[in-house]
Amino acid sequence: MKMSPRNRFAGTITQLKKGAVMAQVTVDIGGGNTVTSAIFVDSAEDLGLKTGDKVLAVIKSTDVMIFKE
Amino acid sequence: MKMSPRNRFAGTITQLKKGAVMAQVTVDIGGGNTVTSAIFVDSAEDLGLKTGDKVLAVIKSTDVMIFKE
Amino acid sequence: MKMSPRNRFAGTITQLKKGAVMAQVTVDIGGGNTVTSAIFVDSAEDLGLKTGDKVLAVIKSTDVMIFKE
Amino acid sequence: MKMSPRNRFAGTITQLKKGAVMAQVTVDIGGGNTVTSAIFVDSAEDLGLKTGDKVLAVIKSTDVMIFKE
Amino acid sequence: MKMSPRNRFAGTITQLKKGAVMAQVTVDIGGGNTVTSAIFVDSAEDLGLKTGDKVLAVIKSTDVMIFKE
Amino acid sequence: MKMSPRNRFAGTITQLKKGAVMAQVTVDIGGGNTVTSAIFVDSAEDLGLKTGDKVLAVIKSTDVMIFKE
Repeated sequence: MKMSPRNRFAGTITQLKKGAVMAQVTVDIGGGNTVTSAIFVDSAEDLGLKTGDKVLAVIKSTDVMIFKE
Repeated sequence: MKMSPRNRFAGTITQLKKGAVMAQVTVDIGGGNTVTSAIFVDSAEDLGLKTGDKVLAVIKSTDVMIFKE
Repeated sequence: MKMSPRNRFAGTITQLKKGAVMAQVTVDIGGGNTVTSAIFVDSAEDLGLKTGDKVLAVIKSTDVMIFKE
Repeated sequence: MKMSPRNRFAGTITQLKKGAVMAQVTVDIGGGNTVTSAIFVDSAEDLGLKTGDKVLAVIKSTDVMIFKE
Repeated sequence: MKMSPRNRFAGTITQLKKGAVMAQVTVDIGGGNTVTSAIFVDSAEDLGLKTGDKVLAVIKSTDVMIFKE
Repeated sequence: MKMSPRNRFAGTITQLKKGAVMAQVTVDIGGGNTVTSAIFVDSAEDLGLKTGDKVLAVIKSTDVMIFKE
């Protein structure tokens, strides 16, 4: 399945924190970088997410900001 | 200045493409990963962005999705 | 590939409009509903999008607002 | 009141789940499609949302992604 | 029509810039603050937007970031 | 640090509500306007946020919608 979002980072889940409705997922994508995602607890459970899973973190370009010193 | 977005990737601009209103910025963040951002041309010019610049690509966690095979 | 976004609408592209950087894609998802998307022209071309294509329009729940009379 | 977001789906609330801060709202928009939204519990209570309510699910085009086999 | 987004700012359009697909709208909301929006040119034309118009700038809370010195 | 997001509102935190994963931050930005933000509890704690703090509420233009009577 090809997708329009250009930001796709393969990595491994290193932390998973669940609230009543929202979950916080942390993914190590290598190069010293980690990505943190906020998704529904339902979605985390649908995907059967757990620490150590190989996943893809996906981000639409319109959601990326640029900062410069 | 501390910021709430948890996803902050330091990198170098490798491509900058400008339309009439929007600009497409590609940033090499190391580890084999690049980040692409859509911002206003005005913003790109306010920051004086150009290929080779050291920048920070910043993304709010609520904008990050997770995919799993 | 399973995905965390819960909003996935199968449909057919009915219109595709390209600017210098951004493209506007309209998808008929049935039930009298159409979905409009703003993506990079590069992404539209990577996916080889054209009118009549069968696609999936995907939306993260944190981007959906509710209105009530 | 006219609005810039082009994606407006009329439907009926079929599920409402509340956490401490966030709420998950599911709306049947017909044609076999449902839309899920993450909003503040405060917002759900301001609008007096409950199962069976007629509502509008609204989404900005820049938040819609396209996938193609 | 009641809406879930909690950030609603009444103001006056002070600038409107149109590209092929996207438009940049600047709104003076008082208190020394202006809000800039990126919407489709089609949406700007559907709403008949022009400088001097009284409008509402609306933002979902999940899209607001916090910075602190 | 210069930033691409054009919407930056200086203000004072008037309310802070924490759930298990998400926090709701309300900021008075003057001119009769307040901004509400949804961020991770972890982020609120990293920034040491508390009522009375001077902060900046930052919003990307692609997340701003326009409404007109």
